[in-house]
Parts: sequence; C-alpha cells; structure tokens
Amino acid sequence: MERIGSLHEEPMLKGQLLRQVRIAAGHLTGIGKMIEGDAYCVDILKQIAAVQGILGRTARALAESHTRHCVRHAIEEGHGEEKIEELFEALKYLRHF
Amino acid sequence: MERIGSLHEEPMLKGQLLRQVRIAAGHLTGIGKMIEGDAYCVDILKQIAAVQGILGRTARALAESHTRHCVRHAIEEGHGEEKIEELFEALKYLRHF
Amino acid sequence: MERIGSLHEEPMLKGQLLRQVRIAAGHLTGIGKMIEGDAYCVDILKQIAAVQGILGRTARALAESHTRHCVRHAIEEGHGEEKIEELFEALKYLRHF
Amino acid sequence: MERIGSLHEEPMLKGQLLRQVRIAAGHLTGIGKMIEGDAYCVDILKQIAAVQGILGRTARALAESHTRHCVRHAIEEGHGEEKIEELFEALKYLRHF
Repeated sequence: MERIGSLHEEPMLKGQLLRQVRIAAGHLTGIGKMIEGDAYCVDILKQIAAVQGILGRTARALAESHTRHCVRHAIEEGHGEEKIEELFEALKYLRHF
Repeated sequence: MERIGSLHEEPMLKGQLLRQVRIAAGHLTGIGKMIEGDAYCVDILKQIAAVQGILGRTARALAESHTRHCVRHAIEEGHGEEKIEELFEALKYLRHF
Repeated sequence: MERIGSLHEEPMLKGQLLRQVRIAAGHLTGIGKMIEGDAYCVDILKQIAAVQGILGRTARALAESHTRHCVRHAIEEGHGEEKIEELFEALKYLRHF
Repeated sequence: MERIGSLHEEPMLKGQLLRQVRIAAGHLTGIGKMIEGDAYCVDILKQIAAVQGILGRTARALAESHTRHCVRHAIEEGHGEEKIEELFEALKYLRHF
C-alpha cells in the first residue's frame, strides 16, 4: 500500500507536525480577526510571515521524513526513480521551506 | 491615528482577503486531519503548497493596498521615508508573495 | 522622463548594488567551474544559495529605493496608482527578497 | 570517494546545468550594465527575477540528481540517514526551487 504516508513510522514527528499545523490555524484565525478589525497592515503582514514560517518548517520536516521512509523503501525495492521525481515535482510548488 | 490599517478604505478587498484567510484556515484543518490519518506525504505537501499560495497572494494584495493608502498618505504628509522602510523590513520576512 | 531609474539619486547605493551584482557574477563563474569539475552536489547547492541570497538582498534594496524615489515622485505628481501596481506586479516574479 | 558529485553520472544534465549557469552569468553582466546606466528599477527587478528563476531551476535539477545518485547510493550502502539530513539542511538555505 504505497499511498500510506511516512508519519506513522515517526509518531513523535507526527505529533509535532500536528501541533505546528494547529498553531498555524490558530494564527490564521487571529489574522482573520485582525483583518475584520482594520488592524495595521504591517502587523497583519508580520502574522502572515509567521504562518509562512511555520508552514515552511512543516513542509520541510515532512519532505525529509518522506525521503527517509517512502523514498528509501522505494529505492530498496528498486523503483526509487519515480518516487524521487514525484517528490521534486511537489517541492516545485512549495513556495519555500 | 497611523496604526489603523488601509483595509477600511477598501471594503471589497477587505472582504476578499477575509475569505482567502478563511479558505486557508479550512485547508489547514484538512491538513491536520490528513496528518492524523497518515495520509500520503506528497498529498500533504501539495495541500501545504496550496495554503502557501493563498497566503502569498493575500500578503501581496495587503502590501499593495498598504502602499496605495498608508504609504501614500505618509508621503503626502512628508514622512514617507519611515513608512517605506517599515514596509520593506516586513516584506523581508515574508517568504514569498 | 519616467523610465530613468532611481539609482542616480542614490550614488552610494548604486555602487553597493553594483558590487553585489559583481560578487554574485563571480560566484556564478565559480559554480560553473564546480559543475565542470564534478564537485559535490551539496557544495554546489550551497553556492547557489549564496547567490540567491545576494540577489534577494539586491532586489529588495532596489525595490525600496524605487519606492523612495520613483513611486514617491509619482504619488506627489498624482499618478502613484499605476506605479504601485507596476511595482507589485514585478515583485510577484521575484522569488524572494 | 563520497565527495564526488552526481553530475558525472549524468553528462547531459551536466551540460544543461552548465549552460544555465552561463546564461545566468550573462544576465548578471547585463544587470551590472543596467545599474551603471541608471536603467529603470522595475526593468532591473525583472532581470533579477529571471536570474532567480534560472538559479531555482538549476538548484532543483541538481538536488534531484543528487537524490537519484548520491542519496540512493548511500541508502543502498545503509547510510542514507546522514545524506538525507545533509540534503535537507542545504535545501533550507535555498530561497526557492
């Protein structure tokens, strides 16, 4: 079953990423309130930058874990090529790690 | 009152950014569920990329509106210099527009 | 003559940006030699990251100078709107400051 | 000899990356002349964006080739872990693919 992710092999990382995503979601709720309340633009930009930072770190940790498990398994089973291509195709759309 | 943002001068943009932020927050909730459910890493990465895209467009529209209003007013009143410096300092931390 | 840039109003910044661009070009020459000589991939990636860093800082300083001069002049003459739109359109294509 | 890069295993890609880096260097020379000649800031920004685009594509192709060869070899020899960590550490500093 290749479409199962790698995070079940790293429960600690899984918990950590889940917390990061929830923190980012909490920031976004706050950003929504700032927009509603006509907060100062630069203060909103700083909050958006904070969320971007969290998402970048989350994506990086996830891509690394994916390489450590899914890509590694695929290489060990002799079909690493397509997994590697798939990963870098996805990384292209990530704005930043 | 310089710390009021520019969005009250652009109610349509304000509504639009608010919707974008809520869509991004909805995506993040979905990403949290994907992580919990051991979804495939590359599928999660694509969702994170989608949120990064929305946040980038939100930040860009906000920075442009800020320039169109707050920075412009500051320039008209003769103290544009500090507003411009403040804006570009904030842009430095945004990962991407 | 609107198509003249802002750097002639800031000779010190102009010299500084020119030096940065030349340093970046020197790095690129080195990167070319590394590729020719089969240098280690990660070492090449680090050099590319260094050039990206220089270019990002150059772009940011230039965009800020542009705002301080060209955009400000346009605002003072009452046609800031189009200049601001033009700037943010260009910033969209910059990968990172 | 682990510090040899992967590009000697992909001569076509090697030639291609070398050409890209030379094109980027040519652009930088042009950007230097634009700065010297007080070219319009937004035109310079567009050229910088073009170079950033080339460098991003070069870095991405190189990182993918590195994974396809150096990282794969390391995994096959049982020490993939450190290679993967090294790669993602380097990717952190790349501004954008």
